[in-house]
Amino acid sequence: MTEVLWANLRAPELSELARRNAIVLVPVGSMEQHGPHLPVQVDSLLATEICIRAARRVREREPVVVAPTVWCGLAEHHMDFGGTMTLDFDTFRGVLRCICQSLVRQGFRRILLLNGHGGNVSALNVIAGDIGRELEAPVFAATYCYLAGTAQRYKDILEQQENVRHAGEAESSMVLALLPELVDRESMAHTQGTMTNMVGPSGAYRFRSFAELTETGVNGVPAVATAEKGELLLDAAAEELAETLLGDELW
Amino acid sequence: MTEVLWANLRAPELSELARRNAIVLVPVGSMEQHGPHLPVQVDSLLATEICIRAARRVREREPVVVAPTVWCGLAEHHMDFGGTMTLDFDTFRGVLRCICQSLVRQGFRRILLLNGHGGNVSALNVIAGDIGRELEAPVFAATYCYLAGTAQRYKDILEQQENVRHAGEAESSMVLALLPELVDRESMAHTQGTMTNMVGPSGAYRFRSFAELTETGVNGVPAVATAEKGELLLDAAAEELAETLLGDELW
Amino acid sequence: MTEVLWANLRAPELSELARRNAIVLVPVGSMEQHGPHLPVQVDSLLATEICIRAARRVREREPVVVAPTVWCGLAEHHMDFGGTMTLDFDTFRGVLRCICQSLVRQGFRRILLLNGHGGNVSALNVIAGDIGRELEAPVFAATYCYLAGTAQRYKDILEQQENVRHAGEAESSMVLALLPELVDRESMAHTQGTMTNMVGPSGAYRFRSFAELTETGVNGVPAVATAEKGELLLDAAAEELAETLLGDELW
Amino acid sequence: MTEVLWANLRAPELSELARRNAIVLVPVGSMEQHGPHLPVQVDSLLATEICIRAARRVREREPVVVAPTVWCGLAEHHMDFGGTMTLDFDTFRGVLRCICQSLVRQGFRRILLLNGHGGNVSALNVIAGDIGRELEAPVFAATYCYLAGTAQRYKDILEQQENVRHAGEAESSMVLALLPELVDRESMAHTQGTMTNMVGPSGAYRFRSFAELTETGVNGVPAVATAEKGELLLDAAAEELAETLLGDELW
Amino acid sequence: MTEVLWANLRAPELSELARRNAIVLVPVGSMEQHGPHLPVQVDSLLATEICIRAARRVREREPVVVAPTVWCGLAEHHMDFGGTMTLDFDTFRGVLRCICQSLVRQGFRRILLLNGHGGNVSALNVIAGDIGRELEAPVFAATYCYLAGTAQRYKDILEQQENVRHAGEAESSMVLALLPELVDRESMAHTQGTMTNMVGPSGAYRFRSFAELTETGVNGVPAVATAEKGELLLDAAAEELAETLLGDELW
Amino acid sequence: MTEVLWANLRAPELSELARRNAIVLVPVGSMEQHGPHLPVQVDSLLATEICIRAARRVREREPVVVAPTVWCGLAEHHMDFGGTMTLDFDTFRGVLRCICQSLVRQGFRRILLLNGHGGNVSALNVIAGDIGRELEAPVFAATYCYLAGTAQRYKDILEQQENVRHAGEAESSMVLALLPELVDRESMAHTQGTMTNMVGPSGAYRFRSFAELTETGVNGVPAVATAEKGELLLDAAAEELAETLLGDELW
Repeated sequence: MTEVLWANLRAPELSELARRNAIVLVPVGSMEQHGPHLPVQVDSLLATEICIRAARRVREREPVVVAPTVWCGLAEHHMDFGGTMTLDFDTFRGVLRCICQSLVRQGFRRILLLNGHGGNVSALNVIAGDIGRELEAPVFAATYCYLAGTAQRYKDILEQQENVRHAGEAESSMVLALLPELVDRESMAHTQGTMTNMVGPSGAYRFRSFAELTETGVNGVPAVATAEKGELLLDAAAEELAETLLGDELW
Repeated sequence: MTEVLWANLRAPELSELARRNAIVLVPVGSMEQHGPHLPVQVDSLLATEICIRAARRVREREPVVVAPTVWCGLAEHHMDFGGTMTLDFDTFRGVLRCICQSLVRQGFRRILLLNGHGGNVSALNVIAGDIGRELEAPVFAATYCYLAGTAQRYKDILEQQENVRHAGEAESSMVLALLPELVDRESMAHTQGTMTNMVGPSGAYRFRSFAELTETGVNGVPAVATAEKGELLLDAAAEELAETLLGDELW
Repeated sequence: MTEVLWANLRAPELSELARRNAIVLVPVGSMEQHGPHLPVQVDSLLATEICIRAARRVREREPVVVAPTVWCGLAEHHMDFGGTMTLDFDTFRGVLRCICQSLVRQGFRRILLLNGHGGNVSALNVIAGDIGRELEAPVFAATYCYLAGTAQRYKDILEQQENVRHAGEAESSMVLALLPELVDRESMAHTQGTMTNMVGPSGAYRFRSFAELTETGVNGVPAVATAEKGELLLDAAAEELAETLLGDELW
Repeated sequence: MTEVLWANLRAPELSELARRNAIVLVPVGSMEQHGPHLPVQVDSLLATEICIRAARRVREREPVVVAPTVWCGLAEHHMDFGGTMTLDFDTFRGVLRCICQSLVRQGFRRILLLNGHGGNVSALNVIAGDIGRELEAPVFAATYCYLAGTAQRYKDILEQQENVRHAGEAESSMVLALLPELVDRESMAHTQGTMTNMVGPSGAYRFRSFAELTETGVNGVPAVATAEKGELLLDAAAEELAETLLGDELW
Repeated sequence: MTEVLWANLRAPELSELARRNAIVLVPVGSMEQHGPHLPVQVDSLLATEICIRAARRVREREPVVVAPTVWCGLAEHHMDFGGTMTLDFDTFRGVLRCICQSLVRQGFRRILLLNGHGGNVSALNVIAGDIGRELEAPVFAATYCYLAGTAQRYKDILEQQENVRHAGEAESSMVLALLPELVDRESMAHTQGTMTNMVGPSGAYRFRSFAELTETGVNGVPAVATAEKGELLLDAAAEELAETLLGDELW
Repeated sequence: MTEVLWANLRAPELSELARRNAIVLVPVGSMEQHGPHLPVQVDSLLATEICIRAARRVREREPVVVAPTVWCGLAEHHMDFGGTMTLDFDTFRGVLRCICQSLVRQGFRRILLLNGHGGNVSALNVIAGDIGRELEAPVFAATYCYLAGTAQRYKDILEQQENVRHAGEAESSMVLALLPELVDRESMAHTQGTMTNMVGPSGAYRFRSFAELTETGVNGVPAVATAEKGELLLDAAAEELAETLLGDELW
């Protein structure tokens, strides 16, 4: 069985995976504006792709399956731009809770929510903690670009950014690698991004619309993106996620 | 602009669609066992495909866009089989409410939730009614196989069923037309389905696990499915949905 | 013990009925405008009366009791008219859940919610399903006019309608049979009703105030109502419900 | 218009009452064990009757209407006995909130919830306060036997009790006055009641099942009940309620 | 171990108290306007002080600990004045439920919520009842000034009031005894209070802002307050609470 | 007016502060085990003290007030040890929301939640974001030890830790500075702490009881704590917080 996508499998195959205590990767993304040059699916696309690539690396040593993508997250701060959808916290929690509960009831015990959207990070920590305790099963949350190894490898690959920023060099590169036909290269070349963080002075945080930070909806430098970098970035994240999943202490 | 998928569009394109008062089709499906021969994504796959085909028919006369698929619905009655995920009612309502609210806040006013899963029907009526009233926008719910014209056209195409049943002749045919490589033809040819309805004697309804009705998880006759019928069925539903969307009285 | 009304019984009698595994019928209605000629209690009155008549038919073969009537349901679509009260979905669910939970805790295991209001139908399916599963007891929902046998018998009795419509021939006849002094015959004779369904073209549903459909609040033809038809209709529904309750496969 | 019951009125009559700013009395009771001799509807019956009698006294000076009875309240402490139904707090609040909201949306502004059940008292204070503030309308809660005048008049009428107790002298007398055929006089004559309060030593309160206090489910002395006392008690409460409603400062 | 404050104890000491089945007193107050002369912490201060004094009386016979003070309660009716904070009912219930649940999970079984704020009384009855039943542990609620003995002793000590009123003789005296530096004696001497109850004519209750009753925010006669009376009042309440806790029938 | 504590102020003083648009600092802590040597109030104590010291630095340039401390937070991971209380997420959110709403309704517009407990961090980000947006007022969340300047100054002061850890060198030092009589120096000298982080390998997070990490409940090196370091640490945090509050861009 070489298929890793839950959606493509049949019920008896998934029952068999449960019996073998397969790892379930749940990609968690967003559907939100990514500047004038990238499609709104970016965060969901990248989280899914990294799960698939990690699953392919892992499956020879551990059974693994990639659940359908939770394509809507917490994107209130992007609502001032077009094309954005957002859940509220309670619904986001409800969705993740119902999915994990379904998995545990079907016999799966090893779950990792792989996140691709900055706005989901704090909420996922709260939610994964509560769900894991309630279901008495290890439910991990991780954001691909904050995995320690990824962070380092990304820094080495990127030219004008130190990390992943919204619709900037890293994300634009990865979309170029995966869905180049959906990138508007003209606007990618000319869009100026801001270079701020969402967090305020000295670590005090408050809600802030992304529109307060940037007119273009971009944070970072999309103009220097290339498909080649994108491939490297995706593989680096997948590699790091695979190592995490196979690590001694995780489960 | 010939792209109809929300996820593939960029923010400015979606803002433009909102300004043009585009129709938004939201495919609503499920992720649940569909017998030993079909992948678990069937209901989501079909709802999405029918939306896309209908959007292509409609877009010359009306701007239209297909939102990402709500791929998890109410499938508690399938939880005794493998591969099933389910939301609870409150979460399902929350998801649809947040999506519609995001759409209305972005400026869209014409929304239709196109459903492909029997277990969602009653809940969608409740939810679409409540959301539409709350948002003061017409939010329609429809299940493709219950659209009046579809029902009649399906009856004419099918050989051993009068309508769509779970993993039977109709659904198996449509999946053969779309994703033949995911169908296990061996088990499709030999699986016996039940021929019951979920509703009890004389219209009294209670919760009943699908496993009470059938050991195989199938309702209907998958063995007679063909890709040709599948194409006809998909087009019939898309045609009917397109006519509904363009009908005089809808919006 | 010939009394069938829960409210009229004493605690030890109800404990005895629980020990005998009595069927509990819960009438579920509404309190809403029914045109200028009928009192607002119609749906609650009729659901209750049909339960009582069915219980009298059943009680020689099965112990049975009729709970107090849930007289308020989902009537938002009638709020533009006078005299209407409505619950929201969550409260309606809460009421039915608490009642069924009380019954199950007292030892009752066979429950049927007998509905008399169109606006409750979808919600009752959702609710009865969820409650039954949660309480691990069969909790049925049925709407009297949709019971298969009732539908046919009603068609034969009615002159100008094919089925029950809001404040039309059928409902007016039944109220004439039960509470003639509360019917305003003058306005009954002259009120014109619409002849539409709440469901839109081709099965797409959205919320619609009843006032969009009719100025009078009436759907159907009240002018041809008679007490004689009313008696026949009530007995037909009671007969059909009794047969359902005594059917082989129900519990 | 001499009819005071909401349920018996027609929509235009209720619209007219709203226009005239009629007082709405909402009887709030319970459905719970009342010893071996009284039917389980006692608290609902009495609250309703007192509202009707008060309305008849009031209607010459003020328009007034009696809503259908909220027949289920908070009776968890009676669940150890047969025949009891209970709501949880949130559902009870939901029901009262939806009713009051419906009334206010229909144009009514003067609402009094008239309670007949001890277990509802604290909750009603919380709920009426919150609803009244939310709806920006005066929503009063009152328990008939705690109205100052009633308390005094009751004391004078009763022989062996100082106030209303559960299924004792006062309640048994009132049921004898209204529904004598539902009273089991044999057990009424012989049932020993406890004489305790639900509140513990020195005003510290905790949840306590009624079964901790009494085996018979009775608090007080039913044996001395008579229909004559019952009539006096009902009239005293109705008189007091009418005076309250007509008082200068209430609305 | 002579320390009675939970907050001042170390984890092993609290574990030991749980093992010894210690009584836990939870002071419940408010943070709200108390006229121009008293600090806003009055109700929390007094509930806490009375718990501490009672604990010191009790601890030789029973192990006892005073939890941190729930310093925010239901004070919506004081929001028209400055300095007031309020919870809504659901949050207030949530806080008390989480605290009691934490206590029970740590092994404590004897809990009393000692209230110092009139606006909390009804809610606490509802909440303590529900929590106690849910946790299957005796959870008592009591308001210090309504404890039977306190009421009598207070009457004897006070000159111009019969009981505790908002920011009047009793409360002002007790604050003078505890935190005299926070009392504005000038305004205390000259502020006129109202002498009304929050409850309306004849026991009918509705929400009423405190500003409807008094411009000064004071109910009672602060001018006659003295620290000496305050000491007597505090000791009387503590004495009564201690007797209640040691009473035969409480736990 | 030199008093900075809300609880100690009178209503008119707080109204005046609202009129002057004072900053409100809300200390948010926890009540949980802190090893065998520290009292359970540590996180609440330190958050409060740092607010007070910062307020004293700020008040000459900006009006400022310190709200009562939210002394209970999210401490589920400490429940396996004695003396711990915890809220669930929804209640924690409710408390902070009600407090901020009260503040905004009273006229305050500048709010900072100053947190002293690691287990609250993610939740506070979610909550402050949602509250700020709902109330349309800047509501900041900050954790004292993560303020950029604090982090650096702490590193310089501490000998055997790089940052604040649970009941280790930093926290023990600060409690020694404030409440030395509550520290058990014997156990402080001999307790071995773990040196792990709550976050798992490579940034994947799941719920983990603190008892999985350490038998003693301590993370860090309490033995090297001194009151002198404690003073320096408290002042460093207060200084940094004051600078943040007075920073150009905050409000």
